[in-house]
Amino acid sequence: MSEVAPDAIRVGVLGARGRMGTEVCKAVDAAPDMELVAMVEVGDWLFNMSDAGAEVVIDFTRPEVVMDNLHWCIDQGIHTVVGTTGFTPERIKRVEHWLSAKPGLGSIIAPNFGIGAVLMMRFAQAAAKHFESAEVVEFHHPNKVDAPSGTATRTAELIAAARKEAGLGASPDATTQALDGARGADVEGVKVHAVRSAGMIAHQEVILGGAGETLTLRHDSVDRASFMPGVLLATRAVRSKPGLTVGIDSLLD
Amino acid sequence: MSEVAPDAIRVGVLGARGRMGTEVCKAVDAAPDMELVAMVEVGDWLFNMSDAGAEVVIDFTRPEVVMDNLHWCIDQGIHTVVGTTGFTPERIKRVEHWLSAKPGLGSIIAPNFGIGAVLMMRFAQAAAKHFESAEVVEFHHPNKVDAPSGTATRTAELIAAARKEAGLGASPDATTQALDGARGADVEGVKVHAVRSAGMIAHQEVILGGAGETLTLRHDSVDRASFMPGVLLATRAVRSKPGLTVGIDSLLD
Amino acid sequence: MSEVAPDAIRVGVLGARGRMGTEVCKAVDAAPDMELVAMVEVGDWLFNMSDAGAEVVIDFTRPEVVMDNLHWCIDQGIHTVVGTTGFTPERIKRVEHWLSAKPGLGSIIAPNFGIGAVLMMRFAQAAAKHFESAEVVEFHHPNKVDAPSGTATRTAELIAAARKEAGLGASPDATTQALDGARGADVEGVKVHAVRSAGMIAHQEVILGGAGETLTLRHDSVDRASFMPGVLLATRAVRSKPGLTVGIDSLLD
Amino acid sequence: MSEVAPDAIRVGVLGARGRMGTEVCKAVDAAPDMELVAMVEVGDWLFNMSDAGAEVVIDFTRPEVVMDNLHWCIDQGIHTVVGTTGFTPERIKRVEHWLSAKPGLGSIIAPNFGIGAVLMMRFAQAAAKHFESAEVVEFHHPNKVDAPSGTATRTAELIAAARKEAGLGASPDATTQALDGARGADVEGVKVHAVRSAGMIAHQEVILGGAGETLTLRHDSVDRASFMPGVLLATRAVRSKPGLTVGIDSLLD
Repeated sequence: MSEVAPDAIRVGVLGARGRMGTEVCKAVDAAPDMELVAMVEVGDWLFNMSDAGAEVVIDFTRPEVVMDNLHWCIDQGIHTVVGTTGFTPERIKRVEHWLSAKPGLGSIIAPNFGIGAVLMMRFAQAAAKHFESAEVVEFHHPNKVDAPSGTATRTAELIAAARKEAGLGASPDATTQALDGARGADVEGVKVHAVRSAGMIAHQEVILGGAGETLTLRHDSVDRASFMPGVLLATRAVRSKPGLTVGIDSLLD
Repeated sequence: MSEVAPDAIRVGVLGARGRMGTEVCKAVDAAPDMELVAMVEVGDWLFNMSDAGAEVVIDFTRPEVVMDNLHWCIDQGIHTVVGTTGFTPERIKRVEHWLSAKPGLGSIIAPNFGIGAVLMMRFAQAAAKHFESAEVVEFHHPNKVDAPSGTATRTAELIAAARKEAGLGASPDATTQALDGARGADVEGVKVHAVRSAGMIAHQEVILGGAGETLTLRHDSVDRASFMPGVLLATRAVRSKPGLTVGIDSLLD
Repeated sequence: MSEVAPDAIRVGVLGARGRMGTEVCKAVDAAPDMELVAMVEVGDWLFNMSDAGAEVVIDFTRPEVVMDNLHWCIDQGIHTVVGTTGFTPERIKRVEHWLSAKPGLGSIIAPNFGIGAVLMMRFAQAAAKHFESAEVVEFHHPNKVDAPSGTATRTAELIAAARKEAGLGASPDATTQALDGARGADVEGVKVHAVRSAGMIAHQEVILGGAGETLTLRHDSVDRASFMPGVLLATRAVRSKPGLTVGIDSLLD
Repeated sequence: MSEVAPDAIRVGVLGARGRMGTEVCKAVDAAPDMELVAMVEVGDWLFNMSDAGAEVVIDFTRPEVVMDNLHWCIDQGIHTVVGTTGFTPERIKRVEHWLSAKPGLGSIIAPNFGIGAVLMMRFAQAAAKHFESAEVVEFHHPNKVDAPSGTATRTAELIAAARKEAGLGASPDATTQALDGARGADVEGVKVHAVRSAGMIAHQEVILGGAGETLTLRHDSVDRASFMPGVLLATRAVRSKPGLTVGIDSLLD
């Protein structure tokens, strides 16, 4: 364990032995301004968290247990940073309701803690109104079951909304003879292409084109480690962010 | 006009005032080992070619006149380099028949004189058997009417044939939930994706993937000038290539 | 000329027959909310501008005449949009001084009107603090005399400033044995690499890397037309931007 | 262990517990046409190899022991596939001398078993003569100590040799004002640029440019697994390749 500052944030990890949890424990342990005070697996006794004096709990568990975990933490007055998936609008509302009873308590729930991916989406959204054309190409390993990826779909939705707000119509496209599928999937008017290839991990390109120029935003993720800076950023921020924050986008400035 | 060598190839250009023909005239004129002896437009008197002593005629005209042009040139014993499109297998056979009566006379007909594009296809074909996965992504200006491009389709066919010969089955792909079109068009089992964007001209990527690595072959064409080295190469080669040659691939070694 | 709105902006172009000026005239002429009222070449009578009732003058001339042009326009109460290069801090100060006497009058001077390039720089600056590593690679045609390009140098300076402000030190680099030049040029601690190649026009990549991920911002400019949207944007904005504005960055929101 | 064919190649691995050796053992074990008969670590008794009836020994050990290993294997009539580094021309000559006494016995020594990397080099060499311009950009993790990489240097040498043979002079380059290092390192007249960034593993681009077009060959290696197909290919080939073979290039057809 690295040297810990006297005012270090006291952090507990829930789902500590999972793929992501293991990485989170390592990252917290290596952060000089944090102290890893509890590692709890699904099924373990949650009171280990409060007994260890955790100020912030990071939850990378499973959709079927995460709501109970959150309820318990909020009840105990512990801030939470959550990477577990499956948050429907209903669940979000329920968490907000729990937090409303605890002024000063914060919770950050993010579908993607990758700072690079979040910036790619933010930049795509900001740039979209300045370009006639916009398409998304994503590249993943061949074991992925969904196409396009959630991130690509979300990116296309953000671009579509930005174009609409700016009064842009459809991207120009003179195609009259096309093989089925050649022009990709249509996500609210934005074309999205999904490549699957051995040797790839998780990559995405947003291509924005105007007269005589293109701007391409590319994100390459090759390791789970890429999520850790975002997790640590949220862990540092959550104590001064009362209420619910969805996504880490607002923490990046 | 540049200095011309005494043994320069005497070249005539048919379709000399067209988009491509204009470029060809400039390129021939600038080549130190060629002399531009005749520039003939569609509808002009073909005998201008023989009167000027043309040894090689370069034809960039139109499908409806190219067969007459070729017949006349072969009849006159003039070698031909042809970039006009629309050569069906029947037309190819007819040209071969005409040439069979003229031993020593050559004709090179190529759908694409871009050396970079031809090399990309050749390398894709050569590499395909060494990789589990292969996909093609092409990017063009939004005024293009067909998707995917002819070059992309041809590349996919060559890859498919090479995979088949090597006994490779389909590329691995675990996709079970896909938006319509997300995984691209299927060309003999090889996925092809077509992006259309303002600011693009003509670009293509062949992505070959194996365990832990990818090899990407990318061709970017930004100017018609890119076809000229291939036209000149064919013009230099045709006098010692009796009979019909389709494509410039065999001239590249 | 396209249909002109009754409240169209009355625009004059200075340097109208130059490479850029020609493009600007075409772009203004095609814009439905602008009227091209005067095209003036270097050496022509500047009063043509006021006689034609120009509200905004766009200047793409030369460093040796631009200050006189600006002085005259400001004197006449005409707004200015300037793409001519060579603005030193001293010149900038002089223009500010002239404008201070004319409340309500605006001038926008920009070294680069390419929206894509400006966004690339802005995004690089915004993202820099989130990544351990940052390098710039630019690619240009082989006739370029300076390396790296002004845009690449400026990008590196912006990244360096952002890193400094965030308290980031040097990018990690264990290199101990290097061929001279292999690691690029050093611009305030940010490495910049300049590729020169036939077939290239003007391209740049900003590579930002953190644990397990990279974010790459790429701009490709293939035609002078890419500067026109920025010129029109400035022309629309200048009448409500009193005083001097340097760069179009602040107009993009 | 997978099902083994009755005529499977009997393979022993030397350096079996090293980073690469571990991967090799897994790959051999998974190959249906090979049987892993011995795993020997540096310092272990080499006779374990002959006792187990190994026909081919794969050596991923260290420069200081590899010559003894090879001598012993050749003496015992065992074919060898060697990925250990440090083969000087003198060492190569010594191995050739040992093999000359054993007709029919083969040894394949390769500095790089990555098929993608080898193909990239081969294609760069084949294409070089068709393009005016050629540069190499490589991207690696920041812990790499040498710049440029051995593969990039080798690629540049191959390109330089191909250009020389084709009578091509230097790539066009009008640069007159350059920051130190901006134009990269010079490897026999070919410029090579080395990027070092967190989030990168091992990547290389060869950029070949001609009038109006570029051909880019890019290799991305993200996992040691990428070397295994080349190791298995050599293991299959070595029994019918008497004498010494350096590099796997000649095995790829």
